[in-house]
Amino acid sequence: MNLLAKIRDVPDFPKKGVLFKDITTLLKEGPAFREAIDQMVAMLQDSKIQIDKVAAVESRGFIFGAPIAYKLGVGIVPVRKLGKLPAATVSVDYSLEYGVNTVEMHSDGVERGEHVLVVDDLLATGGTTRASIELVEKVGGIVSGVMFLIELEFLNGRQTIGEYPTFALLKF
Amino acid sequence: MNLLAKIRDVPDFPKKGVLFKDITTLLKEGPAFREAIDQMVAMLQDSKIQIDKVAAVESRGFIFGAPIAYKLGVGIVPVRKLGKLPAATVSVDYSLEYGVNTVEMHSDGVERGEHVLVVDDLLATGGTTRASIELVEKVGGIVSGVMFLIELEFLNGRQTIGEYPTFALLKF
Repeated sequence: MNLLAKIRDVPDFPKKGVLFKDITTLLKEGPAFREAIDQMVAMLQDSKIQIDKVAAVESRGFIFGAPIAYKLGVGIVPVRKLGKLPAATVSVDYSLEYGVNTVEMHSDGVERGEHVLVVDDLLATGGTTRASIELVEKVGGIVSGVMFLIELEFLNGRQTIGEYPTFALLKF
Repeated sequence: MNLLAKIRDVPDFPKKGVLFKDITTLLKEGPAFREAIDQMVAMLQDSKIQIDKVAAVESRGFIFGAPIAYKLGVGIVPVRKLGKLPAATVSVDYSLEYGVNTVEMHSDGVERGEHVLVVDDLLATGGTTRASIELVEKVGGIVSGVMFLIELEFLNGRQTIGEYPTFALLKF
């Protein structure tokens, strides 16, 4: 199946001049969604990286992180926006084009020495991903890889992510 | 497995006097997460309701809606907060204790006559769920059921939801 063709371009979202990659046109088709998850899991299994847990980035990252964790039979820890998690957290700030954003994870979400796969829907500049990696490492986890449905290659997000095995199913 | 025992009580979140049911302690254990999804899917299959698509409610609803859709082999349509969806949407307002909230869905997220299961993590007063049902019906979908991980029975959310088959794996 041509999964790339299932992604819809929406011009001027979230602001003028941006061509937004809309994944909902892929999600809404059962066979396309299933094949995307199966192919993502196959890429991970082929790579032979160790995965003890999935860290899924709010909120579209949950849509891929949850079925990947389910298929792998591992737990899932949510990376969320500031103030959403009820128990003790660690947090990391990162810069946006204008201003600063913060991501949080429960301090007990990852055990020391656990191998963690970070999952999000889209790799753009890599800022959120880099902050999510730092969260995992802050509590003693080992980031064994990073997985996306889509990578926007022209934004060089891999450079921001650094030396971590990085997987993307679809590339633009 | 005693899945109920995997839920953590966090007092005074999000505000004083509220005892928050924290699902992250269940999510982070692979076998518990897998069993929760398997049991939710088994409840749906036993009920024999028709499900052509899952409508998952942002953002914790994505964590259950996505693997349920994956296992059933159907598509998933996100119900999101205002302004998050890039293409044409329908929206429904609903009242909170103080003020009004709005949920949105893509107008083309559900086809006319499709049977849709609404999924969220927790049934409290049922306001968000009721609004999500209205979204599906606004575009011509048929809500065949509503599924939660947790139901807080003392809040009578089923009364707000109304005549739709309503399933919850864990009850408090």
